[in-house]
Amino acid sequence: MNATVNRQILLVEKPTGKLGPEHFKMSEGTVPEPKDGEVLVRARYISLDAANRAWMHGATYRAAVEANTVMAGGGIAEVVSSKAPGLSPGDIVFGDTGWQDYAAVPAKHLTKMPRMEPMTHLLSIYGIAGLTAYFGLLHVGKPKEGETVVVSAAAGSVGSIVGQIAKIKGCHVVGIAGGKDKCNWLTSELGFDAAVDYKDGATYKALRAAAPKGIDVYFDNVGGDILEACIALMNNRGRISCCGAISQYDGVPSATGPRGVPGLIVVKRLIMQGFIVMDYMNERDQALKDLQSWVASGKLKVQEDVINGLENTPQALIGLLAGENRGKRMVKV
Amino acid sequence: MNATVNRQILLVEKPTGKLGPEHFKMSEGTVPEPKDGEVLVRARYISLDAANRAWMHGATYRAAVEANTVMAGGGIAEVVSSKAPGLSPGDIVFGDTGWQDYAAVPAKHLTKMPRMEPMTHLLSIYGIAGLTAYFGLLHVGKPKEGETVVVSAAAGSVGSIVGQIAKIKGCHVVGIAGGKDKCNWLTSELGFDAAVDYKDGATYKALRAAAPKGIDVYFDNVGGDILEACIALMNNRGRISCCGAISQYDGVPSATGPRGVPGLIVVKRLIMQGFIVMDYMNERDQALKDLQSWVASGKLKVQEDVINGLENTPQALIGLLAGENRGKRMVKV
Repeated sequence: MNATVNRQILLVEKPTGKLGPEHFKMSEGTVPEPKDGEVLVRARYISLDAANRAWMHGATYRAAVEANTVMAGGGIAEVVSSKAPGLSPGDIVFGDTGWQDYAAVPAKHLTKMPRMEPMTHLLSIYGIAGLTAYFGLLHVGKPKEGETVVVSAAAGSVGSIVGQIAKIKGCHVVGIAGGKDKCNWLTSELGFDAAVDYKDGATYKALRAAAPKGIDVYFDNVGGDILEACIALMNNRGRISCCGAISQYDGVPSATGPRGVPGLIVVKRLIMQGFIVMDYMNERDQALKDLQSWVASGKLKVQEDVINGLENTPQALIGLLAGENRGKRMVKV
Repeated sequence: MNATVNRQILLVEKPTGKLGPEHFKMSEGTVPEPKDGEVLVRARYISLDAANRAWMHGATYRAAVEANTVMAGGGIAEVVSSKAPGLSPGDIVFGDTGWQDYAAVPAKHLTKMPRMEPMTHLLSIYGIAGLTAYFGLLHVGKPKEGETVVVSAAAGSVGSIVGQIAKIKGCHVVGIAGGKDKCNWLTSELGFDAAVDYKDGATYKALRAAAPKGIDVYFDNVGGDILEACIALMNNRGRISCCGAISQYDGVPSATGPRGVPGLIVVKRLIMQGFIVMDYMNERDQALKDLQSWVASGKLKVQEDVINGLENTPQALIGLLAGENRGKRMVKV
């Protein structure tokens, strides 16, 4: 890497249908100079998330990403030089540094992270993915021992942790994932009680068989038909933790919502609750303590999917949207 | 009324489309003899509710009503004779006595009511309608002073009370109702801040104008397109109290749900929660105390729509589903 060149990946146009490599372009900029209050960081690991694709649709909990700008994305970076108090060269930070080698970022938009080995854990189990799973399951879904928990995108970064935490809490856990290999992995390696392959069709029937006592907590990463099937199988007073809607991100979002809303919501007294992990950051220390103890005792397995090279970031996201990854996908810059 | 004849209205077939008079038949049975544990009651007022129609679709929070049986329905009745401890001739009770003059009912399925004038208040403000409005708004929707509350079917038995309680709690209140007359009534008589006529079309635009700061609490009686419009206008951390889905009851229920589920639920961190008033009965005394004090002080107006004659019950329900009524509709037997 040449320290005078800043490789950058631009979003050249917003996709109207499926995301493809043609929507990105590698470019070279200069290494920026940090202003007062800013630090210059060098990207180490860039996080890939289905939400990256959702940002292209418009403003969500953040501003939309725009065409002909550096593609937005969170990651772990190292401070190169600092014009801000509290951050020094060599510090490890988390923040939205975008898909590029270097970025000058206001220090207030960065979170200082502890040094740890492997550093990748800062993006997986101890990062947004782990905390999303923790808060979305325990604070929103509120599973009780013996209840049935279903999670979709179960082999993904968040889902694979959700299911394992639900097992730690004594629940009957069913994962929904695409393909036999992923499903086998969930039951044989991660301890899920059952897995349903949505690519098999007949998801409703398979789910009903896998959750014979009905669903008490559904952790929804996907929306669409799978949400519809789960609503129909929810028990009275069940909770649906709405984390994401991956089925709607890559392409044209569906013009309709799931059947059963609001009819079954009323009859079964369900709670559907959306959440964003950032809302729970004041309880982060307790979450990290729990996650660390579960990892240390071997109750929680950390699965990462690290791809090498900034230039491979577009394909890494395209592949993630197609369901290639197991666990947390990231790019090592 | 001849005390040896029991007039009964049967549901002769379950409607597949709109409910009509052809789905009912007046019949004459005998006055039943109560068994041990039962009481014989004479119906005084039969409650008409949109939910009556929903029961014809299948099991909900109660068993489905079946063809060629007496149509189910709650109401206020007077005990004629009793084979159960705790209930005596002359007592006033609430229960599902069906659309008929007389019924023998297990005492455990009846609730003894106080004598009051007018007795009709036991079905409106101090009955299921008033309690549904109270708990659904205050315990599920949880409005705070200064927030914007929107309620659909706002001129109906529940909606007209929801809006008035929200005003008592210091909220900006918008009602959605069908027709100019109802809308005028909501603002001029019941003190709503604004009303939106959904028959005018352009509900989304009219709502946006009536709720310029967005919606914090939406009390949903209707589902469908109006729910979809409200979801799009909800503020972050808004609450949707799911009480009913009237738009889906009379005819073929829609094969899809509202757009924005779950996408906007996630992004806006919304809570959608279904409820059934029966779940809150242990807090009924406090609710009745509040409702009584608001009625006594003139802050809460009670609107009733009483139709005479058991034989008119089918048409009373058909008309209610078409939006004829203002406030609580019931039939005086």
